[in-house]
Amino acid sequence: MAVPAATAGDDAAHECVGRLAASATHELQNALAVIRESAGLMQDLVSLCSEGLPHRDRLCTMLSLIQEQVARGGDLAWNLNRLAHAWEEDGEGPRDLGAVLEEFVALARRGCAMRGVELSQGEGPAVRVNAPGLALRASLLRAVRCCLGEGLPGGPADDMAGEAVRSSRPATGGALVLRAALQDGVPGVEMDFTPPGTRAASGATELSTTSADTARCMQACGAEVRQAEAAHLRFFLPCPNCTA
Amino acid sequence: MAVPAATAGDDAAHECVGRLAASATHELQNALAVIRESAGLMQDLVSLCSEGLPHRDRLCTMLSLIQEQVARGGDLAWNLNRLAHAWEEDGEGPRDLGAVLEEFVALARRGCAMRGVELSQGEGPAVRVNAPGLALRASLLRAVRCCLGEGLPGGPADDMAGEAVRSSRPATGGALVLRAALQDGVPGVEMDFTPPGTRAASGATELSTTSADTARCMQACGAEVRQAEAAHLRFFLPCPNCTA
Repeated sequence: MAVPAATAGDDAAHECVGRLAASATHELQNALAVIRESAGLMQDLVSLCSEGLPHRDRLCTMLSLIQEQVARGGDLAWNLNRLAHAWEEDGEGPRDLGAVLEEFVALARRGCAMRGVELSQGEGPAVRVNAPGLALRASLLRAVRCCLGEGLPGGPADDMAGEAVRSSRPATGGALVLRAALQDGVPGVEMDFTPPGTRAASGATELSTTSADTARCMQACGAEVRQAEAAHLRFFLPCPNCTA
Repeated sequence: MAVPAATAGDDAAHECVGRLAASATHELQNALAVIRESAGLMQDLVSLCSEGLPHRDRLCTMLSLIQEQVARGGDLAWNLNRLAHAWEEDGEGPRDLGAVLEEFVALARRGCAMRGVELSQGEGPAVRVNAPGLALRASLLRAVRCCLGEGLPGGPADDMAGEAVRSSRPATGGALVLRAALQDGVPGVEMDFTPPGTRAASGATELSTTSADTARCMQACGAEVRQAEAAHLRFFLPCPNCTA
């Protein structure tokens, strides 16, 4: 496919993926709701039974496990549904950046965990932005992948897409905190990054080679390095085409 | 957002949505697998118990219902995961068009049902295509929406995205069958469409105004009208930029 598709084609593609995913995640939520209701009814039935009910404790444990996984799946389906609507966000007026980060963290958490990095959202000021929904998320993902060392020449092969984890890099203990921020009136995301495996070398005060690579990658993404000390990096990623 | 995004930005957006959705649907499949296992274990426990177990039949019924919904959700998550990988299909070599249709039908079925049209896949020859994955799906969705009367000036508002159904058009009984086809060596999709509500007027032999509108819309999408008789329309939609 040598020739890049026209923008009109890309718009149609974004709309197609968005519509199909929105409809399917809605149906997924319906399926999970039926499971939640059924498991809830069974919990009522089992708790009404006397303690003489055979396997009562095991049944209770398994019903709790089902409800836990329904909640986990429902959270994912909900956030996938929000992502599915991102293509149509552009003309919708200002949105809460924190809500976008919440969705993003829920969807990107697993890919980060596979690289030993715990992704979370930190508290920040309420920032409302007019932003193109897809460009905002793409910019965020690119910056997060910098921190994971993904997508760089010579870096580890990407596996955010759920492929097998390469066993060559079992580092853990990393953390990445995203929070909405305003810097000199510019809306954006503050990113606090502690690379995995840094605890063992916590005595170091110099920036490691890897951290320097990460900082360069982040700068190429349009982020500013605001702090770089030993095992901790802080970036500010301006929200692309945003107005506060 | 006046200026259309550059193609590079669109590529990044496709990649972002693809990666996040692939990872999240993978995790959703894991959550559903735990629910399936737990419900299966409970089914074993309940079936091992004597018939004297209180509420035995109700427990069995609810466990079957849970397994049914897990299967429904698993099917959706599986096909969403395939859709999430569509952005990276272009360079991957020939794929089975029938498999793409299977995924598309699973994801678009609900939106069609909300318009009284049962979407299904018909048997067709094995057709392998080199096609840009997103353009192919976007072309399919556009054609399906023509049949649903969506997205046209003056047509009903779109609700493939899972919004509330307008009560103004409660017609049912429609059917749309998609099958892979080769026409004079050109790969594409044959679409058999019976509009909803046509059974009541099955005596008519002339093409209704609505059907004529649908045919015009399909032609604007690049589809050929191959048959148009009373309540039945057959189209051939060439696969965009495909080689067989």
